[in-house]
Amino acid sequence: MNKNRRHFLQKSVKLTGIPLAGPLSFPYISGAYEQIENYTRDLGIKLCLAYFWGIEPRKTALSRQMDVLGAVSPVNSGLANLPGEKDNSRTVIKAVKNAWTREGLTLRVIEGPPYLGEKTKLDLPGRDEEIDNFITLIKNLSLEGIDTICYNWMPIISWARTIVDKSSRGGALVSGFDVTAIKNKPPINEYGNLTPEIMWENLKYFLKAVCPEAEKHGVKLALHPDDPPIDNIQGIPRIMTSVQAFKKMLEIYPSVYNGITFCQGSFASMGDSTEQVNIPEAIKYFGKRNVIHFVHFRDVLGNKHNFEETFHDAGKTEMFAAMQAYRDIGFKGPMRPDHVPTMAGDSNDKPGYSTIGTLFAIGYIRGLMEGVGKGEN
Amino acid sequence: MNKNRRHFLQKSVKLTGIPLAGPLSFPYISGAYEQIENYTRDLGIKLCLAYFWGIEPRKTALSRQMDVLGAVSPVNSGLANLPGEKDNSRTVIKAVKNAWTREGLTLRVIEGPPYLGEKTKLDLPGRDEEIDNFITLIKNLSLEGIDTICYNWMPIISWARTIVDKSSRGGALVSGFDVTAIKNKPPINEYGNLTPEIMWENLKYFLKAVCPEAEKHGVKLALHPDDPPIDNIQGIPRIMTSVQAFKKMLEIYPSVYNGITFCQGSFASMGDSTEQVNIPEAIKYFGKRNVIHFVHFRDVLGNKHNFEETFHDAGKTEMFAAMQAYRDIGFKGPMRPDHVPTMAGDSNDKPGYSTIGTLFAIGYIRGLMEGVGKGEN
Repeated sequence: MNKNRRHFLQKSVKLTGIPLAGPLSFPYISGAYEQIENYTRDLGIKLCLAYFWGIEPRKTALSRQMDVLGAVSPVNSGLANLPGEKDNSRTVIKAVKNAWTREGLTLRVIEGPPYLGEKTKLDLPGRDEEIDNFITLIKNLSLEGIDTICYNWMPIISWARTIVDKSSRGGALVSGFDVTAIKNKPPINEYGNLTPEIMWENLKYFLKAVCPEAEKHGVKLALHPDDPPIDNIQGIPRIMTSVQAFKKMLEIYPSVYNGITFCQGSFASMGDSTEQVNIPEAIKYFGKRNVIHFVHFRDVLGNKHNFEETFHDAGKTEMFAAMQAYRDIGFKGPMRPDHVPTMAGDSNDKPGYSTIGTLFAIGYIRGLMEGVGKGEN
Repeated sequence: MNKNRRHFLQKSVKLTGIPLAGPLSFPYISGAYEQIENYTRDLGIKLCLAYFWGIEPRKTALSRQMDVLGAVSPVNSGLANLPGEKDNSRTVIKAVKNAWTREGLTLRVIEGPPYLGEKTKLDLPGRDEEIDNFITLIKNLSLEGIDTICYNWMPIISWARTIVDKSSRGGALVSGFDVTAIKNKPPINEYGNLTPEIMWENLKYFLKAVCPEAEKHGVKLALHPDDPPIDNIQGIPRIMTSVQAFKKMLEIYPSVYNGITFCQGSFASMGDSTEQVNIPEAIKYFGKRNVIHFVHFRDVLGNKHNFEETFHDAGKTEMFAAMQAYRDIGFKGPMRPDHVPTMAGDSNDKPGYSTIGTLFAIGYIRGLMEGVGKGEN
């Protein structure tokens, strides 16, 4: 059929002499739907992609083609190509910001290094210096007009999965977590007897020190849920594992600058088989308090003890209702797809971050946004 | 950042001994949203991809991963791997159908060879034999349970473009047509003085002969618009170039088996700068008469004299309203994206049929469908 179909095209050209060249007169029209009454493209939400591996030319090209013009990125001297400079320096931040600008993208959220360190999370010697460095990061981001930092409260063991090549729909590869796979692992003792109370005290100390600075500089702190949201892994407590925990965190320092990265997949995997988070309700609860600063749009099947990640259209969450909730709260901040399945022909070297999987995810998200924006709802 | 992010994942594994293995307990759940009240996944429409180049393993794998399980394909002895067999034989049709079934896909529409030939369209010697062959095709398709044939009325010059590598959003490559590029081409004389009236007479002769057979065997004929929809190219008239023409065609033999391939892009490019087709209205007009049998979901910018194809979310058509119209008419037939831009890293060898571009298109279409299905509209 290759031959036949192409033959038709080529025959047309051959028989008629139609040249395969010649300019057309249409300019590129960005956001062609913006003129439609009561509809703002993408609901006014700033769609982004994550670039944890620096500038990947094919990925940035695909972003521009999809009209997804926000970048979520670390800032550090390596990415800035400024060896020896401090990661939190204005020089580094400016260089990283400019690198994205040259790609046609806008750096909207800092996610990744410089990470908030273990000393702060575990009250180890040097904690105040780490916090000072974080405050310097805040100040310098502000000077460069970057206003959102995604951070987490998972020391020692960050996000974790027990499988990264689980076969999902059509054989696409996804990551998963099964608590039984780690139940016999030995406790980690070298940081003493860590308790949830200690972790909360440390978080409180951090927030009391940092939030006033974030307020002063207009930078929004966006705490990511613990992932997986179980109580502990090998004796290292995990405290940001429920909606209630986030309410408690927000009460420590009530301010719109003390906010949340609403990772849908993490919230969706909270709870057990008897009680789980209603995602649209959670979005509305936090959204009405203006503390959702950044959204990771993804989904799972299962709960905190045993879950797997899914295609965006195949998980447990009512994604349309979630999108309606973002519209209802007037969310206009940065949102990125997260943890897409690795699809056919793509490498699973970076589980969850297949470039190709992102195309399907962004298409689906944009369609949902249009549905929410244009439907009478 | 590569190192850092992966380091975190790997550090978790290293420090805790979490094994990167172990089965999870969730079965693959197809159509997770089907349980939601008043919502049927994909609006009950049968999403398909076109396979003009036979079975492409990566593409079929991506189809299964996207949960797009319909195939639009030619039937011919080459594709059936049955050299010497007639293209319209039941043996060939059965073999092609089974080849798709083995891929996990359902052959829903015949598009491509065996094409309806020039003798029928131009009243050349052998016309009745060609028509007999077409009727045999209908009968044998029916015996194999395949009920839709997409055909066209463009002799000599089929679909044509004057550019196939026009730079579109973000540098993605699209096809376009500019009538000025062909205005000085010499007329094609060897078929005599072809007029629209002659073309209509020939179409009438064909429909009168074939529609009763289509009715008898329950096979839906789906006539594709002429593309580009201009009056003629080098003296070869093009008659299926307006909504009015399709109304006229339907009146020749009123029957639900005498229907349309509603190629949105072709209908959207009809007309000139002063008058163009309202796509949702056209869908409703034909849909209420139950004659839309197959949809090519795509879009353009421009009109019949000068247009370019676009990303599905960047053209002139109100795609959400179009999808609402399909819902309103109760369309449950096959639909496929068409003419996607060639995106970064993909080959432009098959302009309009970049596999990668299809991912974004299908994601967007599914999101739109969900928006239409779940919104209060």
